[in-house]
Amino acid sequence: MDVFLTENRGVLLAYDQGLEHGPTDFNEQNVDPSFIMDLAVRGKFNGVIFQKGVAEKYYDRKVPLILKVNGRTSLAGGEPLARQNCSVERAAEIGASAVGYTIYPGSAHENIMFEEFGRIQEQAHKLKMAAIAWVYPRGEAIKNDTSPEVIAYAARVGLELGADAVKIKYSGDVESFRRAVRCAGKAKVFMSGGPKTRSEADFLKQVRGVIDAGAAGVAVGRNVWQSSDPLKMARELRALVIERSSVQETLGC
Amino acid sequence: MDVFLTENRGVLLAYDQGLEHGPTDFNEQNVDPSFIMDLAVRGKFNGVIFQKGVAEKYYDRKVPLILKVNGRTSLAGGEPLARQNCSVERAAEIGASAVGYTIYPGSAHENIMFEEFGRIQEQAHKLKMAAIAWVYPRGEAIKNDTSPEVIAYAARVGLELGADAVKIKYSGDVESFRRAVRCAGKAKVFMSGGPKTRSEADFLKQVRGVIDAGAAGVAVGRNVWQSSDPLKMARELRALVIERSSVQETLGC
Amino acid sequence: MDVFLTENRGVLLAYDQGLEHGPTDFNEQNVDPSFIMDLAVRGKFNGVIFQKGVAEKYYDRKVPLILKVNGRTSLAGGEPLARQNCSVERAAEIGASAVGYTIYPGSAHENIMFEEFGRIQEQAHKLKMAAIAWVYPRGEAIKNDTSPEVIAYAARVGLELGADAVKIKYSGDVESFRRAVRCAGKAKVFMSGGPKTRSEADFLKQVRGVIDAGAAGVAVGRNVWQSSDPLKMARELRALVIERSSVQETLGC
Amino acid sequence: MDVFLTENRGVLLAYDQGLEHGPTDFNEQNVDPSFIMDLAVRGKFNGVIFQKGVAEKYYDRKVPLILKVNGRTSLAGGEPLARQNCSVERAAEIGASAVGYTIYPGSAHENIMFEEFGRIQEQAHKLKMAAIAWVYPRGEAIKNDTSPEVIAYAARVGLELGADAVKIKYSGDVESFRRAVRCAGKAKVFMSGGPKTRSEADFLKQVRGVIDAGAAGVAVGRNVWQSSDPLKMARELRALVIERSSVQETLGC
Amino acid sequence: MDVFLTENRGVLLAYDQGLEHGPTDFNEQNVDPSFIMDLAVRGKFNGVIFQKGVAEKYYDRKVPLILKVNGRTSLAGGEPLARQNCSVERAAEIGASAVGYTIYPGSAHENIMFEEFGRIQEQAHKLKMAAIAWVYPRGEAIKNDTSPEVIAYAARVGLELGADAVKIKYSGDVESFRRAVRCAGKAKVFMSGGPKTRSEADFLKQVRGVIDAGAAGVAVGRNVWQSSDPLKMARELRALVIERSSVQETLGC
Repeated sequence: MDVFLTENRGVLLAYDQGLEHGPTDFNEQNVDPSFIMDLAVRGKFNGVIFQKGVAEKYYDRKVPLILKVNGRTSLAGGEPLARQNCSVERAAEIGASAVGYTIYPGSAHENIMFEEFGRIQEQAHKLKMAAIAWVYPRGEAIKNDTSPEVIAYAARVGLELGADAVKIKYSGDVESFRRAVRCAGKAKVFMSGGPKTRSEADFLKQVRGVIDAGAAGVAVGRNVWQSSDPLKMARELRALVIERSSVQETLGC
Repeated sequence: MDVFLTENRGVLLAYDQGLEHGPTDFNEQNVDPSFIMDLAVRGKFNGVIFQKGVAEKYYDRKVPLILKVNGRTSLAGGEPLARQNCSVERAAEIGASAVGYTIYPGSAHENIMFEEFGRIQEQAHKLKMAAIAWVYPRGEAIKNDTSPEVIAYAARVGLELGADAVKIKYSGDVESFRRAVRCAGKAKVFMSGGPKTRSEADFLKQVRGVIDAGAAGVAVGRNVWQSSDPLKMARELRALVIERSSVQETLGC
Repeated sequence: MDVFLTENRGVLLAYDQGLEHGPTDFNEQNVDPSFIMDLAVRGKFNGVIFQKGVAEKYYDRKVPLILKVNGRTSLAGGEPLARQNCSVERAAEIGASAVGYTIYPGSAHENIMFEEFGRIQEQAHKLKMAAIAWVYPRGEAIKNDTSPEVIAYAARVGLELGADAVKIKYSGDVESFRRAVRCAGKAKVFMSGGPKTRSEADFLKQVRGVIDAGAAGVAVGRNVWQSSDPLKMARELRALVIERSSVQETLGC
Repeated sequence: MDVFLTENRGVLLAYDQGLEHGPTDFNEQNVDPSFIMDLAVRGKFNGVIFQKGVAEKYYDRKVPLILKVNGRTSLAGGEPLARQNCSVERAAEIGASAVGYTIYPGSAHENIMFEEFGRIQEQAHKLKMAAIAWVYPRGEAIKNDTSPEVIAYAARVGLELGADAVKIKYSGDVESFRRAVRCAGKAKVFMSGGPKTRSEADFLKQVRGVIDAGAAGVAVGRNVWQSSDPLKMARELRALVIERSSVQETLGC
Repeated sequence: MDVFLTENRGVLLAYDQGLEHGPTDFNEQNVDPSFIMDLAVRGKFNGVIFQKGVAEKYYDRKVPLILKVNGRTSLAGGEPLARQNCSVERAAEIGASAVGYTIYPGSAHENIMFEEFGRIQEQAHKLKMAAIAWVYPRGEAIKNDTSPEVIAYAARVGLELGADAVKIKYSGDVESFRRAVRCAGKAKVFMSGGPKTRSEADFLKQVRGVIDAGAAGVAVGRNVWQSSDPLKMARELRALVIERSSVQETLGC
């Protein structure tokens, strides 16, 4: 992990939405992975998150790469399951510093993802890459997937299964997110950016809350590249996460 | 890919319908793979698409081969799933320049096909073959499998999963197909020919729209070998796709 | 294939009914595989079809062996599926000239059998054995499994998947069976004998129709070993299939 | 097989009920595998049947061992399935002369067990062990699992799949069991002892029937170790099975 | 086993609840695995039970480690299934003396866990580690998962499948637990601590009953680390289990 963090914290640029949500998230500019690759470099992100196909065709090795090795579309119903679509060896060849893998605890198929992540984590460590778990409780049993209990459980699942870092949703307030960070122990916690918020200030307050809670940072996609000024947003995120500026300072900068 | 394209574009002759639809598509002439092999050569197609069995018994190496390594019949219901029926090694021995694999995003089994395509793509690249994804969203969640959103998503799935090229259906108009081509990024886009259209001119206009939209070409089967003059149709397709002639020029040629 | 055919045609003696139907098909004599092995030799069959267990305990290498490497009982309901129960390596050790494998297109599990047959076919060819596909469309979607369309589709599935020969049911008349033979292309076609017909003459007319349609022969079990004079039936089949005698000539011989 | 039979016949001591039925079958004495191991030696059984765990902790190599390599509890409902829980290599290390495997023809999962037994049989033979199939038709389609037709089918399944011996239930009378023995061909037949019968004489008559029918012997558990005098029962079984004494002689001995 | 037992008995500190139940079991202190690791050392436990992730980040090799290699969350419904999430090789590298694996007999998926445990047990023994089975009957067929019959069956399943030790729930009284211990034979029996009891004395009486019944010890989590004085509880457990003190003596110490 350390190779791509700054003082143990980081801002990651997520760009696997093309597979997970489809291109409805994209406009004419950000549909192009070159634009994102360029943004990652110029925005000084600590890492960029791609699926294999995008990485193979667009990754330029100027920013650390987190290669997402599973994924699913939003088209399928039923109990969620995403399987490995890129080998760990291939991720290493492409130059990844870490592999990312989504786990859906609560799904009827969680056992398959636990097993697969277990294997991937061991291979990644042998090849000197970190293993980051996206942990999103889902399935029939999950009524509210951002309740404090569910988010704390998600964080803990990542620790127990051996993730170097977990990517989880925000639990709504600093106090409960601090609990989640405690539950993750020595596994670093990144907040998942989620859909674009109504106001930029709202989003920055959330990010500040995440940092106050002791998390390592955020992995943001739409709130950056759907922003009217992505580079400004990138600077603000770095200010909040790396320099631990306040929201006021940040907005003033 | 480049070995079988002309100025980055191409017209591919598809002939895996015997497995996918059964012989109802065939007449006494085109039921014979020798006829198709001959047509592929004489029609100067950029590639011919066969399943393993047809390739082993009829492929003559005079035209590049795209070996389709999965498939299913139209006899089975339920959520669609087609698994690998030919090893990548065998495809290479037969002389294929690329392997083709159908993915059904939206199927309850999309996770299996994502995983399998992931493995096949990596093996193909090691053996210097391209990996082409047929991407057809299906399953209970898909109401209209040629809507612009669905087609754009299909194109993007191919890019994200590492396809060198995607074969998708036509979205109905140039504008929306251009969007799909943008979503596919550096993955080349081929339009899937589909069932024989009522008039030849209609089909050629569709093909022209595909090229106008920036796609790399078409993969056509029935509209060629069910045509009354397949070689004429082949010439017209080359004119439109490779030389970028207009429909008028083409029909006049 | 050629090692066990005579002028590209052949009469095969099928004896895997003990697994597929159970011993209800057997009387005190033909329940004994020794009786069948002896009949295969004395009846000059082009090959005999056994499951692994029968082959290991009774096969004497005096007649070519087609080793059936999957099978299921008639006891189970649901969508049909039969998996490999004998390795291809073991089939070779036992002395088989070919492996046989049943595929049920239309079954919800056809994808598993397509994949398994694909692997088996490649292994068999490496070990210089032929791969014969029993193709029987089944499952909820199949209303009539001997309709001309279904039989032609079955034949084609065998060709597309790489079978050296397909074993299919009779479609009811010469014309439609000729169509199925055309659909199989260079894959040889054997008619599956099916349950014992009421009169011997009826059965021989069917066989003659199969040969008139251009098929390579028949794979017969019950119509031979449930016959009152199996050796006479064997002679008649050879006359029809190998010597292409008419039914009249054959019955008169 | 021959290493543990006497003149091609044998009495096997079955003790895998702890897994299959749970300890309700046991009293304070026979719950202890040491008691059974001792009984197997002193009762001069031709073999003793253990699961891996019992064999590893109690087997003393003074009697041939049949290691049962799959099993299931009686706690689960649904279509029956038992998978391999001990490798064939491990069975050999423990000193087994044969591996045992239960197949449930008629189960929706019979295809999995056919495949698994196929692999196990080949491995066992390579390591010079016999492969014995417990064949118990089950599942929704089986109304009466000891009807003569079902038992004969079970015997035949064992032969077809390559078992050296089959363990089947009693069909109720000598005549129908003789038919099952005929169906098993060169595969030896052992009757499964089943639950303790009301009178000892009844059980011995059944065993005598099995021998009269031409079977190789019996595999008995509860009727021996739930008996008030297990060693006497062992002597009686040997008299009937090995020496082919009549029930009268046996009871008089 | 012997490396971490004292006179064949032991008190194990269980800490895999973070995965199995989620952090609702934790307070601010015991949520931190460092606190538990320290407690294990200072409390002189015979072993500590961690999932891979916790072991990799917190295990200090001062107390023997039992690495739990499967697990599931409490979020998912349906028939229970937990698959291997840590390789046996990795467990050895981390320094584990034993691997732990949960089996749910009675689940529709028991066959998968029987197979997986079978493989894991053999690998563990090759690497000189013990294999401990957590055996918890579950699923539709299980009405009361702590009835004497069910607990005795659980113990026996562990023995039959080759576990060196079984971890089972308490059956409610000494007599019935003694029966379970008898059923486990040479496999050691550990009582699963379960949720925190209302009074400490109640819990200690239960532990005493377990020892009276002949078991090897207990694996306790919540009743230790949710206690107001965990070290005192640890001393009391050692007194009862290792020194076989009475509850009175123990409470007086």
